[in-house]
Amino acid sequence: MARFVKKRKEDIGLGPDDLSFRGEQKMDKVLLRMVDYDAENLKEETIKKIDTVLERQKEPTVTWFNIDGLHNPQVIEDIAEGFDFDKLVLADVMDVHTRPKVNEFSNCILLSIKMLQQDEQSNHISVENLSIIITDSVLLSFQEKRGDVFEPVRERIRNQKKRIRNGSTDYLAFALLDIVVDNYIYIVGILGEKIETLEETLLQEPRKSVIDEIYTYKREMNFLRKNITPAKEMILALSKMESELINESTHIHFKELLANVHQAIDSSETYREILSDQLNIYHTTISSKLNDVMKFLTIFSVIFIPLTFIAGIYGTNFEVVPELKYQYSYFIMLGVMVVIAVGMLIYFRKRKWL
Amino acid sequence: MARFVKKRKEDIGLGPDDLSFRGEQKMDKVLLRMVDYDAENLKEETIKKIDTVLERQKEPTVTWFNIDGLHNPQVIEDIAEGFDFDKLVLADVMDVHTRPKVNEFSNCILLSIKMLQQDEQSNHISVENLSIIITDSVLLSFQEKRGDVFEPVRERIRNQKKRIRNGSTDYLAFALLDIVVDNYIYIVGILGEKIETLEETLLQEPRKSVIDEIYTYKREMNFLRKNITPAKEMILALSKMESELINESTHIHFKELLANVHQAIDSSETYREILSDQLNIYHTTISSKLNDVMKFLTIFSVIFIPLTFIAGIYGTNFEVVPELKYQYSYFIMLGVMVVIAVGMLIYFRKRKWL
Amino acid sequence: MARFVKKRKEDIGLGPDDLSFRGEQKMDKVLLRMVDYDAENLKEETIKKIDTVLERQKEPTVTWFNIDGLHNPQVIEDIAEGFDFDKLVLADVMDVHTRPKVNEFSNCILLSIKMLQQDEQSNHISVENLSIIITDSVLLSFQEKRGDVFEPVRERIRNQKKRIRNGSTDYLAFALLDIVVDNYIYIVGILGEKIETLEETLLQEPRKSVIDEIYTYKREMNFLRKNITPAKEMILALSKMESELINESTHIHFKELLANVHQAIDSSETYREILSDQLNIYHTTISSKLNDVMKFLTIFSVIFIPLTFIAGIYGTNFEVVPELKYQYSYFIMLGVMVVIAVGMLIYFRKRKWL
Amino acid sequence: MARFVKKRKEDIGLGPDDLSFRGEQKMDKVLLRMVDYDAENLKEETIKKIDTVLERQKEPTVTWFNIDGLHNPQVIEDIAEGFDFDKLVLADVMDVHTRPKVNEFSNCILLSIKMLQQDEQSNHISVENLSIIITDSVLLSFQEKRGDVFEPVRERIRNQKKRIRNGSTDYLAFALLDIVVDNYIYIVGILGEKIETLEETLLQEPRKSVIDEIYTYKREMNFLRKNITPAKEMILALSKMESELINESTHIHFKELLANVHQAIDSSETYREILSDQLNIYHTTISSKLNDVMKFLTIFSVIFIPLTFIAGIYGTNFEVVPELKYQYSYFIMLGVMVVIAVGMLIYFRKRKWL
Amino acid sequence: MARFVKKRKEDIGLGPDDLSFRGEQKMDKVLLRMVDYDAENLKEETIKKIDTVLERQKEPTVTWFNIDGLHNPQVIEDIAEGFDFDKLVLADVMDVHTRPKVNEFSNCILLSIKMLQQDEQSNHISVENLSIIITDSVLLSFQEKRGDVFEPVRERIRNQKKRIRNGSTDYLAFALLDIVVDNYIYIVGILGEKIETLEETLLQEPRKSVIDEIYTYKREMNFLRKNITPAKEMILALSKMESELINESTHIHFKELLANVHQAIDSSETYREILSDQLNIYHTTISSKLNDVMKFLTIFSVIFIPLTFIAGIYGTNFEVVPELKYQYSYFIMLGVMVVIAVGMLIYFRKRKWL
Repeated sequence: MARFVKKRKEDIGLGPDDLSFRGEQKMDKVLLRMVDYDAENLKEETIKKIDTVLERQKEPTVTWFNIDGLHNPQVIEDIAEGFDFDKLVLADVMDVHTRPKVNEFSNCILLSIKMLQQDEQSNHISVENLSIIITDSVLLSFQEKRGDVFEPVRERIRNQKKRIRNGSTDYLAFALLDIVVDNYIYIVGILGEKIETLEETLLQEPRKSVIDEIYTYKREMNFLRKNITPAKEMILALSKMESELINESTHIHFKELLANVHQAIDSSETYREILSDQLNIYHTTISSKLNDVMKFLTIFSVIFIPLTFIAGIYGTNFEVVPELKYQYSYFIMLGVMVVIAVGMLIYFRKRKWL
Repeated sequence: MARFVKKRKEDIGLGPDDLSFRGEQKMDKVLLRMVDYDAENLKEETIKKIDTVLERQKEPTVTWFNIDGLHNPQVIEDIAEGFDFDKLVLADVMDVHTRPKVNEFSNCILLSIKMLQQDEQSNHISVENLSIIITDSVLLSFQEKRGDVFEPVRERIRNQKKRIRNGSTDYLAFALLDIVVDNYIYIVGILGEKIETLEETLLQEPRKSVIDEIYTYKREMNFLRKNITPAKEMILALSKMESELINESTHIHFKELLANVHQAIDSSETYREILSDQLNIYHTTISSKLNDVMKFLTIFSVIFIPLTFIAGIYGTNFEVVPELKYQYSYFIMLGVMVVIAVGMLIYFRKRKWL
Repeated sequence: MARFVKKRKEDIGLGPDDLSFRGEQKMDKVLLRMVDYDAENLKEETIKKIDTVLERQKEPTVTWFNIDGLHNPQVIEDIAEGFDFDKLVLADVMDVHTRPKVNEFSNCILLSIKMLQQDEQSNHISVENLSIIITDSVLLSFQEKRGDVFEPVRERIRNQKKRIRNGSTDYLAFALLDIVVDNYIYIVGILGEKIETLEETLLQEPRKSVIDEIYTYKREMNFLRKNITPAKEMILALSKMESELINESTHIHFKELLANVHQAIDSSETYREILSDQLNIYHTTISSKLNDVMKFLTIFSVIFIPLTFIAGIYGTNFEVVPELKYQYSYFIMLGVMVVIAVGMLIYFRKRKWL
Repeated sequence: MARFVKKRKEDIGLGPDDLSFRGEQKMDKVLLRMVDYDAENLKEETIKKIDTVLERQKEPTVTWFNIDGLHNPQVIEDIAEGFDFDKLVLADVMDVHTRPKVNEFSNCILLSIKMLQQDEQSNHISVENLSIIITDSVLLSFQEKRGDVFEPVRERIRNQKKRIRNGSTDYLAFALLDIVVDNYIYIVGILGEKIETLEETLLQEPRKSVIDEIYTYKREMNFLRKNITPAKEMILALSKMESELINESTHIHFKELLANVHQAIDSSETYREILSDQLNIYHTTISSKLNDVMKFLTIFSVIFIPLTFIAGIYGTNFEVVPELKYQYSYFIMLGVMVVIAVGMLIYFRKRKWL
Repeated sequence: MARFVKKRKEDIGLGPDDLSFRGEQKMDKVLLRMVDYDAENLKEETIKKIDTVLERQKEPTVTWFNIDGLHNPQVIEDIAEGFDFDKLVLADVMDVHTRPKVNEFSNCILLSIKMLQQDEQSNHISVENLSIIITDSVLLSFQEKRGDVFEPVRERIRNQKKRIRNGSTDYLAFALLDIVVDNYIYIVGILGEKIETLEETLLQEPRKSVIDEIYTYKREMNFLRKNITPAKEMILALSKMESELINESTHIHFKELLANVHQAIDSSETYREILSDQLNIYHTTISSKLNDVMKFLTIFSVIFIPLTFIAGIYGTNFEVVPELKYQYSYFIMLGVMVVIAVGMLIYFRKRKWL
């Protein structure tokens, strides 16, 4: 299936509130995890039924409810009903090919953003959709498959001294987005390092494989940019959003986030230029090497051409060729040949062709 | 006729309210279909005269009136009169080469957008103009030829449980546009998949035909982008329009639509870059193959040149050539030739020319 | 003289209200034509003195006063005085190299736009400046030379049933601009059709002349875009202008006009990309043809090289060359040569070099 | 020193109000000229001390005070004190490498813009900074060296009938800027004409020198654009500035000026594209010529290769070569050679290689 | 490590208020320097503990507190506590890979910008993060390592007559930023000069090393632009900021600064274009030189080909070759050969191949 855009024929014309999963199933069972905390208390557990979370809804504590796996419509519908969300909200969560964006609803804010992961061997970057629903006291995060990418946030929550324990759901949302965006920069950096290393190889020994590497990096950079760029608009919208669900004091964090996304985009832009410079360097190096070879070979041939011609002349069978009779002719011919060859070499060197 | 822009000489200077059809006739007879529904009732029929629709105008139900074929000015004039539309509205509907746009009139909103269809064999994308007129209780849609592209919407209307049954004409308009835009993404995806598949062929076996394919895809991508891009402006205008014909609650759907158009444009942009990378890869591969061939052939020739020269020397007819007399000269010459040839091969290999 | 920008040394430092003609004279005598109409009456005549028009100034009818030829300063000064225009207005009219723009004055609006005309044989596009002055009841249009480009508007005026008969000067201005812009689209279309036709020629038989055609089209497309692009800003300004000389109801027409200019620009943009693709296709085709020729010739030579070498060996005059004595040597040599030649052909074919 | 940007190490860290001249001295002595006028009176003189000007400060007449040469800090300080200018103003005037801009101060407006001059032989464009200070009744203009570029304005002032005599300092500023901008268009036009002429040379006889010319024009166009582009922002700011020093009625002139700068930039943009097209044409023409030569030469060689091979065969010294004995063998061989050569020629022509 | 973007894996998920140093340690010990001044008094000292500064906090004098070295979290924490800064402020200061930006906090403004330094031998540009915190009476500046780049500001402070002595912390911030930006222009200028010098070398003697130089400059220009461009946004924000910490009168200085950054960016843009022109010139020159060589060599070979063929014909051993018997045949053959060679030379010269 196409990697950069996906739309199945059967999904055309679905209603915007249709709760059908529009992606590939990436894990077996849906996994529900809950973290509930305020400045003093902390409770962390893996849950079976969403009722546990619903109870927490009215408590003043912050409840982070993480759902891994979107392919079970029943779970999704239960959530929609339990939290009284507009059907649109969860239909959007299930459409994993959606573009990063932020939408405000009457009782919640829905964010979606792309999480990127890189296989460090093959450099292949894979993408996963992350949806976050912010309500007054509960934050729901939906991932396509189980991952430990948010572990550092859990760590910070476990540590009572950290600011996050005093924050609200919007601060938690920021903390999650921050990890996603830091990951962008990290991946650009990893890729960038490989690209910069390539440069040295390129100048010393332009192997054929280098060009495949360059195109691989180019393709991954394209993929990266395509997924990061809309995140910029999304976070910009977030940093300007006036909603009672977002505290004034969190705005500065979203601005910081925006600067980070900018940094990732700027750098990927720079690496794209470097890659196309590298392509040019490769071509220049290759073609200048080939030219050197061809010039050497041509000059080599050219030197023998008049010599062979002279030998040809004295290979003719005319009855009268005075030189043939003379005793030292053969040696004179050899001498003349040496003179011609050396003369040509000197001439070519003088004109800097050698 | 030019595919990307069309203006017939005789159309220059026509008044903006001239009800003349400015396109090619794509079907025989004009086909009128009506769907009339509200939350409880549903009536679907093919009609002969527009009176049936006009009667429905004052009813609170939503009436969807679909006109396939624009070449009959009588029908169009009847509609203009029956609905009391400004003449401009229907003149615009009949100008099928118009740019996607939205115009607000005193008693209606006029939308036009391009519907794209792809012949999956030839990859040729054809375009058709879709005009939608939104009034209080009637939605009129005009297509150039009969098609079943809106069947999924009819299906949703037939299903009493769907949200569309409770919606107004603006929601119906959204549902139609949604299908058009989903189709954009679908076509970009189909084309994109072919482009991505091309990549593998390209690296393994760069046949000549590949380049024709690349240029075909490029042309179709251009055509696609030219038709999709103005839709972005149109839907943006729609999502910001303040009109009593458009409910507050529909705005969020138009925003979703906008994100989808963005996705289609972004992806087509990415594929354009991939295509131009592919062109470069093709050229690099082809020219590096050619270079290998030429280098091999040149080296092959170069090895024989000194050998032929030596044979030439002993083909001369000088009376005194001491070597000719010696019994083993011939074999020595052959030996020397082998040594020279092998020496050159070693030298070339050492310099990595082979 | 430069085609894309013109400024005579002697024009530097002229006051902005200097009534001197800054162009080339394109016709002999200035021609004054007047059309005067309202819903009921119509009067059309060629006039000698501008007094006839001045009388009409206070009548409620719409008077269209068309001036062909700007080189007579007396006529221009008479107009300035008769209509009490700011001197700036007519100085601007006489500067035919001005950029398309719209300026509002106390008693009039001044528009200027470029009219394009294409010689269909040579594809050469020529440009003429059109200035329009809109006052309360009189519209003045100034052309550099006589032309029948506005004939369709006159036709519409002659037809009593047309909307234009009920319109004011602003609607007349729209009708004139509409023809100019329709002409843009028409010319882009004509050029575009030629460009699309070129594509087929290009793939079948890349003659040398094709490249000249491509560059001709490119140059004309550049010229076109340079003249059309500023019209966009001008019409945008017009469509947003709040002036008592422009009726609310005419705004929608100007918006339509804007969409048309956009269409012309979009298409010319698309054709530019197509042209540069065509250039690439041409180069690829040409170079791949050349490569095929060179490869064929090289392979042909390479096959003969070892054969000639063998013949050379048996052309040596050594006293002892055992093979020479043997009766069938010659035929064996010929056989070996055939084997070598065929072997090489097979080898080359196997490596896909042939 | 670098031509496109200049900053001396010793200028880093200077205070923004440091009255030190940051440029090269381009003339010997500072020259002070004064023109003082109103609708009735006119006084023009070269002055020695600035007191003459200071006296005029309170008069209602317009005083134009032109200073050629900025290297004398004493003069500058006297002006600063005499007119009670902020020190920033004159520090800015002395920094001739500043970017075109407009700044409003409490008692004056400071403009700076680049004046361009072209050596018509070498096409080299030189730049000079022009600073204009507008006060209530005095306009000060600062040039780096003496020039007669503003002579047309003086001429207009001398002519009592001209509008400029009734204008204020802002109108005078416009008149000066107008000349600067007209000069931009003029230079672009001159360069443009040479570029357009180049095109013909290019197609007929692509001499090596053409490419040097193209790059010269490119570099000058770059230099031009770099200096013109910021003027656009400056004049835009001026045309929108609300200051009591600028009359409402002058705004329309600044707008005109803006259109002229746009025209200069647009045209230079167009010429850049033409230049890069020309480069491509040059390369195409050159390489297609070379290809023709190489193809001819290769075909020529290829025809002789089988002929030489045949001669080689009959040059072998085998004892038994039946053909050698036959009386007409030699002539048959010659005939066969002719047949082969002609056959190859026909074959090559048929495949369109010749 | 990647040069254009850096993010360590362990830094992902850190809280935004985590006081950990995210960079490389560039010096041994943290160095604290204080300058305290007003119009009359001046005190300059290197301090050990930050208490000295804290005491100054309530005085009306301006205190400039410069910290070189960020790797000691204790110092940073002391500052945070002493000045009662939000923890975010100092966490940001310690993240040296942050993007240039300005953030307003309740009791301070935080600026960060990149300082560039160029090794004039290797042209390598190194970057260092500079953070500035502006409070009411104290300005804190944080550098990664000790440098004397701000010495000119200290000089100006020492001079009692300079404006800076009457300024507040915002003016001091401007003075520091001014040096940073002047340095940008200076580096662009230095690099630019080298690039312009390259041009001459390029046209006279295109050595292989030139291309390495071009790519080095390109890479440094890229690096430069990547670091300068975000500074533009930062200074723009600063010049528009409405804060009680920034005086009205300082805005004009920030605007000046903005113009300077623009100048640096414009020039670097221009040099990028020049560099890519130079690359093209290099390739053109190189390939035209190679073409000349190859053409010469090919023509040389081609001339000998028919001559060698003729010699080959008379080297055949046919019994009957009439010419062989004739006495002057050999000389006639030589004559014919000369005629052919000369004829070919004339022909080639005529077709301008030589």
